[in-house]
Amino acid sequence: MSDSAYNHLVQRCSEIALYTSTSALLGWDQETCLPRKGIAYRAEQCALLGGRAHRLFCAPEVGKWISECEEGETGGDCVRSVNVRDWRWSYDRATKLPEDLVEKSERVRAHAMPAWARAREENKFTDFKPHLDTIIDINRQKAECYGYQETPYDALMEDYERGASTAAVAELFEELKPQLRDIGSAAARRSESVPADMLSGHYPLSAQRDFNEKVARAFGFDFDAGRIDTAVHPFCSGLAPGDTRLTTRYDEEDFSSSLYGVLHETGHGLYEQGLPPEHHGTPAGGSVSLGIHESQSRLWENHVGRQPAFWEHWFPLAAESFKALHGREAGDLIAFTTRSQPSLIRVEADEATYDLHIVLRFEIERDLISGNLAVADLPEAWNAKFEDFFGIRVPNDTEGCLQDIHWSMGALGYFPTYTIGNLGAAQLFAKAHEQLPGIDGELAVGNYTRLLEWLRRNIHAPGGKLLPADLMRAATGEDLSPSYHLEHLRSRYL
Amino acid sequence: MSDSAYNHLVQRCSEIALYTSTSALLGWDQETCLPRKGIAYRAEQCALLGGRAHRLFCAPEVGKWISECEEGETGGDCVRSVNVRDWRWSYDRATKLPEDLVEKSERVRAHAMPAWARAREENKFTDFKPHLDTIIDINRQKAECYGYQETPYDALMEDYERGASTAAVAELFEELKPQLRDIGSAAARRSESVPADMLSGHYPLSAQRDFNEKVARAFGFDFDAGRIDTAVHPFCSGLAPGDTRLTTRYDEEDFSSSLYGVLHETGHGLYEQGLPPEHHGTPAGGSVSLGIHESQSRLWENHVGRQPAFWEHWFPLAAESFKALHGREAGDLIAFTTRSQPSLIRVEADEATYDLHIVLRFEIERDLISGNLAVADLPEAWNAKFEDFFGIRVPNDTEGCLQDIHWSMGALGYFPTYTIGNLGAAQLFAKAHEQLPGIDGELAVGNYTRLLEWLRRNIHAPGGKLLPADLMRAATGEDLSPSYHLEHLRSRYL
Repeated sequence: MSDSAYNHLVQRCSEIALYTSTSALLGWDQETCLPRKGIAYRAEQCALLGGRAHRLFCAPEVGKWISECEEGETGGDCVRSVNVRDWRWSYDRATKLPEDLVEKSERVRAHAMPAWARAREENKFTDFKPHLDTIIDINRQKAECYGYQETPYDALMEDYERGASTAAVAELFEELKPQLRDIGSAAARRSESVPADMLSGHYPLSAQRDFNEKVARAFGFDFDAGRIDTAVHPFCSGLAPGDTRLTTRYDEEDFSSSLYGVLHETGHGLYEQGLPPEHHGTPAGGSVSLGIHESQSRLWENHVGRQPAFWEHWFPLAAESFKALHGREAGDLIAFTTRSQPSLIRVEADEATYDLHIVLRFEIERDLISGNLAVADLPEAWNAKFEDFFGIRVPNDTEGCLQDIHWSMGALGYFPTYTIGNLGAAQLFAKAHEQLPGIDGELAVGNYTRLLEWLRRNIHAPGGKLLPADLMRAATGEDLSPSYHLEHLRSRYL
Repeated sequence: MSDSAYNHLVQRCSEIALYTSTSALLGWDQETCLPRKGIAYRAEQCALLGGRAHRLFCAPEVGKWISECEEGETGGDCVRSVNVRDWRWSYDRATKLPEDLVEKSERVRAHAMPAWARAREENKFTDFKPHLDTIIDINRQKAECYGYQETPYDALMEDYERGASTAAVAELFEELKPQLRDIGSAAARRSESVPADMLSGHYPLSAQRDFNEKVARAFGFDFDAGRIDTAVHPFCSGLAPGDTRLTTRYDEEDFSSSLYGVLHETGHGLYEQGLPPEHHGTPAGGSVSLGIHESQSRLWENHVGRQPAFWEHWFPLAAESFKALHGREAGDLIAFTTRSQPSLIRVEADEATYDLHIVLRFEIERDLISGNLAVADLPEAWNAKFEDFFGIRVPNDTEGCLQDIHWSMGALGYFPTYTIGNLGAAQLFAKAHEQLPGIDGELAVGNYTRLLEWLRRNIHAPGGKLLPADLMRAATGEDLSPSYHLEHLRSRYL
């Protein structure tokens, strides 16, 4: 009996995956190709496919099948147990939200995103404020529907990082904060001798594209199962089995901007390409959390891509690719790509200052949800905190509280996963390093095979079989800890 | 009563259009972007969306609504009458196909297209043969389901050109054949003084792209509602309102190959961009037939793009764009782009020999469907006929029976529409010329506004309101006739 229920669920989820993967293509195309006059119709296509996938999953028979599976559950088959557990979790969550709240949420988001884009462009927080008021209100209602242990923010974080709690994140961030401030200050002093325009020159787009592809290929990205395109906001989309797409943006004055964008997205892409295809469409076949995803992108971008060995290997090819690097040497590249300085914009922040941006956003959104901070007071609170954290006065809201897209999308509880990812990256890289004798010699000659194999085995191939905390424990032998990340930053920047 | 039935139908068709336009994007992406390893899953996505759209249209309530509309039909509202008439025609046709045949057809096509591309690349007809066997078989099954007057091929042609019959096309082609042979021979003799390598040189891809875009823009193509990409087989896809995409392919030794590809597809694109948006999703808002579609592409490619005035106007910009044209003059371009010679590849054939390629394909596919020709014997039959028509020995299947994408897409009955389009283009251009005094002067300075307006008014804006034959009669005052096309070829090539 439960066998047939399980098969029904697998089949239903395969159908849903066909819709969601098609939606993902619509989204990818919107960011990379869609002509301006096609945007309105695209919104209708997305709404139809999204609604169809949601209805297929929330149907009463799905609940019945899950219950039948739970009754017959023996715990014998790991994949099956994982899938049933996750379906239950997702089904209960999805069906706890009344349909009018889901619809309202979609509608608000559709209006809030363009309103945010305009408000940011025109530096008018007050134009975005009413939208953010509604978004905070809807998120509070969602949290009440989901239920939570201590605080509504707990319920929201669950969408992005299963098992994370507000209290644990707050404690972690309190521990990190003073140390990150010290590291940031020291890193900035150390970088004073490295001018921002040190490598300035002309880096033709096509040469950047070729160079980036060569590095991504060397890391192990399979171009028969993926590609790199151009988009305003870089992202990675694991569209479907055999189809993982990265995007980056180009600055013809600074090749490192597109390169590190590609290295970061390649980390995401390698994870997507390493997921177990035989479980595609079911929870066991998917990525486990945003924090784990980010640990992969950060590992390749920062731990591999900014270590001295990276440039010692790749400098000759870079010098061949870019005339502007004539007369430079590997050491210049190493210094330039580990330059650190407090700055206003999170997505452009270096790794020594990045996490403080995240701590700031966490404290603010937690207080917005709890009601300790009113939306009207957001700019003032942001600016005060920013000056406290970074010693920089925020000149306007465009470069302050309006800079990120997340809140306009209704995503509250997302930001902490960036720092969770940074911690994971450092811990995983340290453990891989420990378990792979001779790996330094391999990285020094641009051989990334064993490192990728280690990640495939420990992180990618398990897919969604373990919860994030359990996966980290299984891979590294201990709980996620900030010590590896702090140690990494200290050794690189102090 | 019938008002509410009509509204139900409009709403249902809007939903179906969201699915079919999404399917069209999946198809466009497959030809332009999709990595090799994503092909298998893409086939599943296409099958699901195709099946869903088919089911939504074939549902019993749709038949009920159509009947209700027919009962209340007063003939007062033209758009409404057209829609009801066309829904009836499509519904009767669609409900004749069993669902599993539709899905099988989608899946076979998704596998056959990449298999064809590989077989063509590797000159291995035997690798494509099993796919073509299945495709012929499915098409015969479809024809039996649809029913037909005289021969199964009649039923297949109806998908592309309403009202066309095998007998009428055969008669037309028999009439054309000897005259086309005479024109072709004379044109080839006349072109002997124009060497094939007359303009040989290096034409950088990016310069070609810029030049092509400038001409397409001058013709009236709206790049805020469309784009041009690269694909192995050039096509135009009217994906959605505000989103019409053209593709071309580049030869760095011969810029005219991508240019005339773009001019051709721009003609299709202008038609798509000129359809009445207020009727999108219903028959009245769509293009009327492939023959009419092709009349638009041929008109811009051949009647506008190959007339002497075209190069008299565009030569200076071409000379500026391409160093290889230094020392040339407009007359060289005119001679080169109206050069005629029997050749192997249809899509590269000049207009004086093009229709003979179509006659050949018509005779072959008609015989494949009737069973007079076995798939295994296709290469031999192709080569024999080719030598008879053109006096050229076909050196391999890549340049022979594997050259076209159509059969891999499952499209049989499509080819005749190319020649129907050529006849239409000549007749429409002659009539526009007659009705627009002073138009020659405008074309000579690259002003295409009034010509486009005439086509908008007479062909594009009517959408699907008239059947193809009626539309031609309304636009030109007479039935479609081969005389304008033959007259055009004679005056240009003899």
